Amino acid sequence: MNYINQYIEEHKERFLEELFGLIRIPSISSLSENKPDMINAAEYWKNSILQAGADKAKIIPTDGNPVVYGEKIIDKNLPTVLVYGHYDVMPVDPLDLWKTLPFEPQIIDGKIVARGADDDKGQAFMHAKAFELMVKTNTLPCNVKFMIEGEEEIGSPNLPKFCEKHKEMLKADIILVSDTGMIAQDIPSITTGLRGLSYMEVAVTGPNRDLHSGIFGGAVANPANILAKMIASLHDENNHITIPGFYDDVLEISTEERAEMAKAPFNLENYKKALDIKSEWGEKGFSTTERTGIRPTLDINGIWSGYIGEGAKTVLPSIATAKISMRLVPNQSNDKISALFQKHFEAIAPDFVKVKVSALHGGEPYVSPIDMPAYKAAEKAYTETFGIKPVPTRSGGSIPVIADFEKILGIKSILMGFGLESDAIHSPNENYPLFNFYKGIETIPYFYKFYSELLNK
Amino acid sequence: MNYINQYIEEHKERFLEELFGLIRIPSISSLSENKPDMINAAEYWKNSILQAGADKAKIIPTDGNPVVYGEKIIDKNLPTVLVYGHYDVMPVDPLDLWKTLPFEPQIIDGKIVARGADDDKGQAFMHAKAFELMVKTNTLPCNVKFMIEGEEEIGSPNLPKFCEKHKEMLKADIILVSDTGMIAQDIPSITTGLRGLSYMEVAVTGPNRDLHSGIFGGAVANPANILAKMIASLHDENNHITIPGFYDDVLEISTEERAEMAKAPFNLENYKKALDIKSEWGEKGFSTTERTGIRPTLDINGIWSGYIGEGAKTVLPSIATAKISMRLVPNQSNDKISALFQKHFEAIAPDFVKVKVSALHGGEPYVSPIDMPAYKAAEKAYTETFGIKPVPTRSGGSIPVIADFEKILGIKSILMGFGLESDAIHSPNENYPLFNFYKGIETIPYFYKFYSELLNK
Repeated sequence: MNYINQYIEEHKERFLEELFGLIRIPSISSLSENKPDMINAAEYWKNSILQAGADKAKIIPTDGNPVVYGEKIIDKNLPTVLVYGHYDVMPVDPLDLWKTLPFEPQIIDGKIVARGADDDKGQAFMHAKAFELMVKTNTLPCNVKFMIEGEEEIGSPNLPKFCEKHKEMLKADIILVSDTGMIAQDIPSITTGLRGLSYMEVAVTGPNRDLHSGIFGGAVANPANILAKMIASLHDENNHITIPGFYDDVLEISTEERAEMAKAPFNLENYKKALDIKSEWGEKGFSTTERTGIRPTLDINGIWSGYIGEGAKTVLPSIATAKISMRLVPNQSNDKISALFQKHFEAIAPDFVKVKVSALHGGEPYVSPIDMPAYKAAEKAYTETFGIKPVPTRSGGSIPVIADFEKILGIKSILMGFGLESDAIHSPNENYPLFNFYKGIETIPYFYKFYSELLNK
Repeated sequence: MNYINQYIEEHKERFLEELFGLIRIPSISSLSENKPDMINAAEYWKNSILQAGADKAKIIPTDGNPVVYGEKIIDKNLPTVLVYGHYDVMPVDPLDLWKTLPFEPQIIDGKIVARGADDDKGQAFMHAKAFELMVKTNTLPCNVKFMIEGEEEIGSPNLPKFCEKHKEMLKADIILVSDTGMIAQDIPSITTGLRGLSYMEVAVTGPNRDLHSGIFGGAVANPANILAKMIASLHDENNHITIPGFYDDVLEISTEERAEMAKAPFNLENYKKALDIKSEWGEKGFSTTERTGIRPTLDINGIWSGYIGEGAKTVLPSIATAKISMRLVPNQSNDKISALFQKHFEAIAPDFVKVKVSALHGGEPYVSPIDMPAYKAAEKAYTETFGIKPVPTRSGGSIPVIADFEKILGIKSILMGFGLESDAIHSPNENYPLFNFYKGIETIPYFYKFYSELLNK
């Protein structure tokens, strides 16, 4: 057993205890009632970085939730890795579908079950522990910086400004992120592309008050019916999105590249079985992997109108609201797509309703080249610990700030994700296997080693 | 001033106080948490009937909320009027749109503002007070029975069985109901038709759990998108309902009758202005009055799916649910339409989702002939107190149990409604003008008088 496995073996219980402490803080960034928890989670991270061996760590305020920054500079001439992660988590509703309390982590069947177990407390915390491992075993080969934010799940509205302001402080050769997934525990993969996001909220208003559906039904447009009709029209019969200009900037992928991507292991029958669906769905002419990897999409994330309580109420609602988000691919732009959506949604609104369209948040798509040193180093690291070369994949998810990093700081990111599809991130019963947690802590030091070697050549 | 006006003038403050006492009981029948309030409201009614002069009054249990029954039999050979009303009310949400607390009645601009002010506490209570007036002034010309139930707003699920069981006790010549509206304070009207109701709940399930919309969006059918598409398809481009067989039993109205109905005063510009809508909506080929009076309709009463909280959550929901109700006209049948809806909704569900359709409640449409003695008596009564002959109208609303009364008890109903469209029943800030409340108490004794005279001829 080498020094890495030995250190993990000796400290694995404590690593878990420390992660649980972080998870127990309900740092839901989208709910204002959880504001105090954001500060607590930031404090926890600051102390974790210091305890792991950083020279300094501090909580830097923003217009929203603060950013935790820490660093250990061992030699200004050596490369610098900037670790990015987030301490905020998604809301937990619907609460009744959780089998355990979301902020009381438990080990069930070898998995940590809790909100944030994977996204991104579990994954980000691997970096704190891998860093500690390198410091305590005197094997840290380069400089390390940490930037842990508290607004990733609401689209990082204040991080771009933070980066602008602290360009010098954040100087680094690569940004290292674990906030994505891999194909399976025996098939490691590296995410080379992320989709962008345009997240909108639409409100359709009919009459100026809720009406009795008997007295007015049939003579006054029902905004819930109208909203349904408008939403239905956003996809055509081939599930193409009907917003004019929506696909104009989409980077088409060559037949060769598509053939290469199709080699990644994927079993449609298992996929359908795991989700308990009879048929898959999606844009005509593309495979399931392509639909989430290289194609833009449009989904209803929430819809509500009228009476949603127990029993029956014969109401013709005054207003119907929906949260609608679009995932974007290279070279689509969030601002442009949000504007196209707004224009189209207003244009298709019939005369008998009023519509209000707001952009809630968004981010640009990102592509990570597989020929950069960081990719090569990550590839070597996974090969070392998994015994198999990782597969480059395009993720359907979005980390909007990754594109901003490149634009503002001029630094590429390497996405070493250790999550699994079955981790149910953003869902009830989110979980993270102990295997992946410890495998991450084991793999990260190799990345530092190989990356430093490649850059020092 | 005659004895009727004099009695009202002397007791008007007390009448109001007593009504307020009833209104203050939050007897919402669709919410199980309000169960104790149902008993309190029934007790209140029992005491009101006894205090007004009934020989006896009692609370009779059912499988749901109890029915209050009371009677005063002055002579078995005289006609009997059976007063029907309900002590239950609609839910009050959205609470934030109320300007006052819904169960703390207040007089604002000459109107009683509260949940139940009109529907049906205010309107039904006029009968208790008109009855008291006739008893105390020794002018009651016939027998009176009261049947006040507590489940009208959830479709009277237990009243048909109650009627079957108590046929003998409920024997009467006419059922007198104030649970509808009139055109305006200076244009009295009598409702001669009620629409029936089929109230359904549908649930569309996609994947077996909420998913991350980035990782799965575009490859897995989103049940909210699918539900929107299914709802959108329920109306065609002319706003005809597309359910096969839906219109098969609709009684078509002759051109002559439609011309007669078109004479009822109606101002489309005022209607639109009052609702703050730019355009009216509805089935092609029919006027606004016809759309709510003689045509069946389909409305979304509620819809919900996914994340409906503050901010953004990138979730692909597992389930999307809607409450959908249809208003029926003579000779449509609730059971048949519910079955047609279910069959159609299941048939249009695509392969990638599962649907569940449940019938929540319903009732049959009703027509009241204008040549029966009760209609003639009501017409004379309104003419006496309003100085103008009332207009016969078809209401868009439903009182499902009215059709049941005819079927089970063999008794017709006369619908002497004193509500106004602006009373906002089922909506926030429900109200009932004092003018209408007192005018009802004034008009009802004339109905008893003329009805007894006509039947004794």
